[in-house]
Amino acid sequence: MKEYREVRASLSGFVELVKTPERAAEVTLQPVDLLGVDAAIIFSDILTIPEAMGLPYELVEKKGPLFPNPLQGPNDLDRVKVADVESDLGYVLEAIRITKRELDNRVPLIGFAGAPWTIFCYMVEGQGSKTFSKARRMLYQEPGFAHTVLDRITQSTIAYLKAQIKAGANLVQVFDSWAGILPPHHYSEFSIRYIRTICEAITEVPVTVFSKGAFFARQELGQLDCQTVGLDWNMNIAESRQLIGPDKTLQGNLDPCALYGSFDEVGKATKDMLRAFGPTKHIANLGHGVYPDTDPDKVRCFIDTVKEYQHT
Amino acid sequence: MKEYREVRASLSGFVELVKTPERAAEVTLQPVDLLGVDAAIIFSDILTIPEAMGLPYELVEKKGPLFPNPLQGPNDLDRVKVADVESDLGYVLEAIRITKRELDNRVPLIGFAGAPWTIFCYMVEGQGSKTFSKARRMLYQEPGFAHTVLDRITQSTIAYLKAQIKAGANLVQVFDSWAGILPPHHYSEFSIRYIRTICEAITEVPVTVFSKGAFFARQELGQLDCQTVGLDWNMNIAESRQLIGPDKTLQGNLDPCALYGSFDEVGKATKDMLRAFGPTKHIANLGHGVYPDTDPDKVRCFIDTVKEYQHT
Repeated sequence: MKEYREVRASLSGFVELVKTPERAAEVTLQPVDLLGVDAAIIFSDILTIPEAMGLPYELVEKKGPLFPNPLQGPNDLDRVKVADVESDLGYVLEAIRITKRELDNRVPLIGFAGAPWTIFCYMVEGQGSKTFSKARRMLYQEPGFAHTVLDRITQSTIAYLKAQIKAGANLVQVFDSWAGILPPHHYSEFSIRYIRTICEAITEVPVTVFSKGAFFARQELGQLDCQTVGLDWNMNIAESRQLIGPDKTLQGNLDPCALYGSFDEVGKATKDMLRAFGPTKHIANLGHGVYPDTDPDKVRCFIDTVKEYQHT
Repeated sequence: MKEYREVRASLSGFVELVKTPERAAEVTLQPVDLLGVDAAIIFSDILTIPEAMGLPYELVEKKGPLFPNPLQGPNDLDRVKVADVESDLGYVLEAIRITKRELDNRVPLIGFAGAPWTIFCYMVEGQGSKTFSKARRMLYQEPGFAHTVLDRITQSTIAYLKAQIKAGANLVQVFDSWAGILPPHHYSEFSIRYIRTICEAITEVPVTVFSKGAFFARQELGQLDCQTVGLDWNMNIAESRQLIGPDKTLQGNLDPCALYGSFDEVGKATKDMLRAFGPTKHIANLGHGVYPDTDPDKVRCFIDTVKEYQHT
């Protein structure tokens, strides 16, 4: 949205925006005020946690996040501490408090954090990667080190999400962006295990788990102590419901590229999705974030179609 | 392998190596001579096809392929022709002939090409991408254009694979590297449909299809007129066998990162994989390419374990 770009252009970049509570709250409210979504999600970044744990990062234009000093092995353990949420992540909590005040209960506010495995990927790899082979190498070569770091991330994340809830978040979401690059046995051992710990620790509000690409783990995801499981756009809805079971709410999963179609096509694709999920236990969403070159009017068309839809 | 790096360093780069038949044949033989694999795969690149169709590319160090003039829509249709394989891809055919001569029937030689959808991704995106949202956008906004380009790629690929077979390839493999970013209905319409055409056209030798990430299409892959289906390292073997059916040979699927383990661990992981696939209809392989920093002795350990393994 141009309104978002204007705010961002007034600051030195994405990271400064994340760290400036008033402005982060302002852009959090934009989709509520301008698009009519029926929940807000706090404007922030999953990489606030590794920074609070001792690994600062920058965002390089067109390249993505960069950690100048990634973790290289057990000798680096003293460089990662459990985050002190109040002192190191106070800016996120403040952004939540401001947003809550300005929302004035119009819609609920969603908080979030990265899943420990995904955070570990960035901490070890130092940047995005097609294969995350450095991070995955650790799971074979230094599993004890990996578990220690993952445990510290988990403890930090639990404290962080609880603080977000105390500040006003009505639901929290855990994003495992790099779930899909693990073989199933590693996903069980190094990822979902820590997500499970987080889900069990968060009892105050509903929890949504979105493990991108973890098609192979849908049964396991269905057994988590969470309320909602997010689906990718390449996961079949009926099959996912069968694997995950009847109890969870499912979230998703329109292909973000579907919003490149005409208004008629966006409406049709949205209704097809709603029909496939059925009338209950579904949170309508895209299967991933909106691509930056999407026409906001198409997003609005998606939202309006969802709001107007009547299951027959 | 250092032997490969030496050859590559003697030329200006990867693309020149691909285009120099004597040297391409030389590096093709290295894994046979130095590692003991029981098939050779011709050293080449899936991007030879878009170049032969009219879109030249370069390989930018640490960034990957770059097409300076990607396709932007229907107005660019006259820039892509069906490849004239003999004149434009003669260097690949010559590399195959030299390799066959030097192999002297010690092991079979595998030829390959990219699947049309994956080639289309590069032609439209111009480079690698996390989302390939430009290419996927075309499927929503210009489906007719996409089908025309995909059809030309398919015709070029059939001619290319047939020429590889005539030059001596004993089996051909089709790589759909970007299968996994499509929603299932688009994969059916824009990808597997063209792979099917290729499979039906290639009757001379066995065909292997490796659609990376297409977990959702395993049943459809099982119905292709091909002999072998490749599996990713994150696909469960028993489940894949059930979805693909009993007739196909399956290829794969050890996590390339498993080779970062100790020799004992590599041996154990390899045997676990062999046991899971069972005694027939399996081609032992990794679930993706070897990562560049892998110790060649670990690759050798994988190969030796496969060769020595006795199913009980």
